[in-house]
Amino acid sequence: MTHVLVIGAAGMIGRKLVEKLVENGNLRDREISRFTLVDVVAPETPPNAPCPVDLVACDFSESGRAEKLIENRPDVIFHLAAIVSGEAETDYDKGYRINLDGSRHLFEAIRLAGDSYCPRVVYTSSIAVFGAPFPDPIPDDFHLTPLTSYGTQKAVGEFLLSDLTRRGMMDGVGIRLPTIVVRPGKANLAASSFFSGIIREPLNDQEAILPVGDDVLHWMASPRAAVGFLLHAAEVDGEAIGPRRNMTMPGVGATVADEIDSLRRIGGEARARLIRRVPDEAIRLIVSGWPTRFDTKRAEGLGFKADASFDAIVRAYIDDEGINI
Amino acid sequence: MTHVLVIGAAGMIGRKLVEKLVENGNLRDREISRFTLVDVVAPETPPNAPCPVDLVACDFSESGRAEKLIENRPDVIFHLAAIVSGEAETDYDKGYRINLDGSRHLFEAIRLAGDSYCPRVVYTSSIAVFGAPFPDPIPDDFHLTPLTSYGTQKAVGEFLLSDLTRRGMMDGVGIRLPTIVVRPGKANLAASSFFSGIIREPLNDQEAILPVGDDVLHWMASPRAAVGFLLHAAEVDGEAIGPRRNMTMPGVGATVADEIDSLRRIGGEARARLIRRVPDEAIRLIVSGWPTRFDTKRAEGLGFKADASFDAIVRAYIDDEGINI
Repeated sequence: MTHVLVIGAAGMIGRKLVEKLVENGNLRDREISRFTLVDVVAPETPPNAPCPVDLVACDFSESGRAEKLIENRPDVIFHLAAIVSGEAETDYDKGYRINLDGSRHLFEAIRLAGDSYCPRVVYTSSIAVFGAPFPDPIPDDFHLTPLTSYGTQKAVGEFLLSDLTRRGMMDGVGIRLPTIVVRPGKANLAASSFFSGIIREPLNDQEAILPVGDDVLHWMASPRAAVGFLLHAAEVDGEAIGPRRNMTMPGVGATVADEIDSLRRIGGEARARLIRRVPDEAIRLIVSGWPTRFDTKRAEGLGFKADASFDAIVRAYIDDEGINI
Repeated sequence: MTHVLVIGAAGMIGRKLVEKLVENGNLRDREISRFTLVDVVAPETPPNAPCPVDLVACDFSESGRAEKLIENRPDVIFHLAAIVSGEAETDYDKGYRINLDGSRHLFEAIRLAGDSYCPRVVYTSSIAVFGAPFPDPIPDDFHLTPLTSYGTQKAVGEFLLSDLTRRGMMDGVGIRLPTIVVRPGKANLAASSFFSGIIREPLNDQEAILPVGDDVLHWMASPRAAVGFLLHAAEVDGEAIGPRRNMTMPGVGATVADEIDSLRRIGGEARARLIRRVPDEAIRLIVSGWPTRFDTKRAEGLGFKADASFDAIVRAYIDDEGINI
């Protein structure tokens, strides 16, 4: 019997993760007996949930909250809650409060819980912990050089997770997610939004704006692959990981041109023509500091699986979102 | 006119730094007009100080202290205060409170000071931010993988320093000090104590215990070189450093056998015979996780200078401490 806590359950990845957990019905070879789903807005009860589901709407970073969330000693904790990159950059205090202090409070609550409580904690870090210039590909032992406050906060969380895990106070695994593509729904204000937009909008017969050159190379994974990483991170053998508890997840290194080629192959030439090139120097500059592609031997050796290709990423979007093409 | 604040001024390196600053009389091409010297025990007024010296005995990590310390807007801040490795490992709370929260409070106080206050902050990190296994030599872009809470706390400080500097909120430079050898005075309880002890004790005609094998390779710098790093870190051009504000300092990569050879050359065979080999498995294990030697191109390119050899390290000890041999 396993009790699963998901912090950040109302977000896109959180919802898809919970859906998959309900579908599987078990985790770490045990039946899931209870869910606690937390977000700053109330998460929804997943349809067909076969066990009790507690929904909690709160800011998990507030004093005393983390202690409350682990009161019933969840066995596996997925910590997905974060202020995104853009907002963490414009709102210094909020970013540090949620992304750094929030994570630290959670880890400290676990440390101080007593009863030898030592849950598996899956922490979503990000490739934003890296900043240019880079070798190509970026190796597993490349130093973290964040160029944003978001990346800094995620990196600090990684170090805290490693230290508490080394000391036997929790059982953490940190996974650095690639940029998630194709994000369903509407375009957002993130500088990375176009990586999804140039596939999503044309597949929905709408125009998409491309603000950067076709040669921009980036590291991407589908929402489906991301959920796979999270589930595997919950189950992977901690001994096999060793003391370096944070890893870059495998992804697909693709250029914008590769993306457009996939769109053309799968959606047809007319859809590819829906992409309009409107160079944006501000976005080009931001993107130029982002990581390109990685050699992710460690994560692959531990069984984490990337999408097979950018075509597979596009097809996952079409399947999972029920798009008619 | 320059006001210099030294936090951790009563420690061995702090005292030597202040002595050198008084001797030089200026920093960053400006006359030093005031010192504020802080430590948890009251620092001493340096002899021959040519300007006002404020002595402050306090725990700089306590709420409100950092704001007070920067009240008169020091132009250069040397932040040397830390709970050492061994104590940070045995006393979890104290280590995190001083090494992580203390540094963060200091940086936050600077950020929130207003008036476009943006002092040069020299932060002493440590090669303890690295943990085995390592390539040989360890390159400048090798990832931080601390295997102690001390190393973790130092690494977090590095990230905070980088982010605030990138955002223009302070002007930080983090320097990862090698193990300081030969430390004057008595042996301490640090696991690294023997690297100094096997030189210092024989040069003072006393027996020294060597707990590890002669082939142990380690990265070392003299107190004199460390003071040189600190002064250069205060003066080096921030533009030239770029966004990666933390660097491993150049050192001497020497084995225990190299150390003993130097002792024999400089102190004679009889002194080398004062080293008694008493293998200690616990110390051997700790030391096996420590970094060996580095390729420090970046710091060297920016003008940081290592000791010329291990012989030079031994001679610096003899000169600086007035040892008769």
